[in-house]
Amino acid sequence: MQRRELLYEGKAKRVYATGEAGRYLVEFKDDATAFNGAKRGTIVQKGEVNCQVSAALFELLTAQGVANHFVSLAGPREMVVKALKIVPVEVVIRNVVAGSMAKRFGLEEGRKLSEPLLEWYYKDDALGDPLVCSSHLYLLGAATEDQLAAMRSSALDVNAILTGYFAGRGIELVDFKLEYGTDADGRLLLGDEISPDTCRFWDLATRDKLDKDRFRRDLGDVEEAYREVYRRVTGHEL
Amino acid sequence: MQRRELLYEGKAKRVYATGEAGRYLVEFKDDATAFNGAKRGTIVQKGEVNCQVSAALFELLTAQGVANHFVSLAGPREMVVKALKIVPVEVVIRNVVAGSMAKRFGLEEGRKLSEPLLEWYYKDDALGDPLVCSSHLYLLGAATEDQLAAMRSSALDVNAILTGYFAGRGIELVDFKLEYGTDADGRLLLGDEISPDTCRFWDLATRDKLDKDRFRRDLGDVEEAYREVYRRVTGHEL
Repeated sequence: MQRRELLYEGKAKRVYATGEAGRYLVEFKDDATAFNGAKRGTIVQKGEVNCQVSAALFELLTAQGVANHFVSLAGPREMVVKALKIVPVEVVIRNVVAGSMAKRFGLEEGRKLSEPLLEWYYKDDALGDPLVCSSHLYLLGAATEDQLAAMRSSALDVNAILTGYFAGRGIELVDFKLEYGTDADGRLLLGDEISPDTCRFWDLATRDKLDKDRFRRDLGDVEEAYREVYRRVTGHEL
Repeated sequence: MQRRELLYEGKAKRVYATGEAGRYLVEFKDDATAFNGAKRGTIVQKGEVNCQVSAALFELLTAQGVANHFVSLAGPREMVVKALKIVPVEVVIRNVVAGSMAKRFGLEEGRKLSEPLLEWYYKDDALGDPLVCSSHLYLLGAATEDQLAAMRSSALDVNAILTGYFAGRGIELVDFKLEYGTDADGRLLLGDEISPDTCRFWDLATRDKLDKDRFRRDLGDVEEAYREVYRRVTGHEL
């Protein structure tokens, strides 16, 4: 797969055109940002961890019938994906109270929820990606009601699959963010990545954080946490 | 109906026990607050306006089959209502972009929405009544999924009825906030009030604001706006 012109550069990834219609090449960077870009840094080997972990999880989801954009790996930190037009919505699923939910509701981090909680965010950097009601999203033209229903159903399926998968690897899946997009035929597919950048992973035994909160909160051992997730998912050392 | 002990005093109303089981007496005050209590003042005759306007609107809704707590008027600024346990949820319906929605999404006030938009807020002064997704409300124990579905359905019915009613009186119903509660039998009823304190009313011809935004934004002629709504609803002068 040829790498052609750079189409988009985000905080953590670059997206390139390829020689093939309907295919993008995604390169995962080591750049790390938090708090809507206010905090910046580098996490060595993050690009490789996130690329390989995402690839393994997308393959798992494909096998379980969850439509997603992953096509194949193209290098240690590169993957080929189906070209998507991203829906400007972030779907967050929470199994345990943490992060902004703890803050918003004055709750203690670590409280297990009685069932998975689904949150909608409007993807707009200038507005700070605000939490919204689903009604806002179709009235703002961000997504149709059918797309929102499909995203809700897919995200809950992803949660069920990944919760079981990570439990088997000694990790509690606390919460995670998903993004969706539509392909040239208008089909809605899961896109973006699934990694320690976009999920909260807690070690089941020690409750240690194995995700980007180590960077956000200056907890140290950031690279080691990313490598540990790589190890648990791929079964070998980075 | 006898007025017994004061059960609750809020920003704009006092609720008293009565000699009758399952009935409260509500007294409407002239006290006005805005921005979660940060701004305080008095709007002369507001109590009477809000009591009489609410009574007329609750009677209209009762006739149209919308279950609510109104029983009868008991004085110029007092009404008897069914005793409710309030569900800590505020339902906002918007027909036109204004107020916090304009701010949250960087939109201009006055944009007509293609269909009514429903927002959920978690009623908690300490948290500042945050906007939430419906999932938060049942996971926080604020309401059951059945209650949320019933509130959504009722609120959209209220909107259809009141939009038509106010259009006939030269007023655009821009948005409004509703609260619900359960009676002793667990039945969900519309409660609180429906008034210039809880609705945005714009004159259809002049676009003048006839609601609490005149107080919030120091627009002047606050009392006159309240009296104008009284006039349009009751058909006579206050």
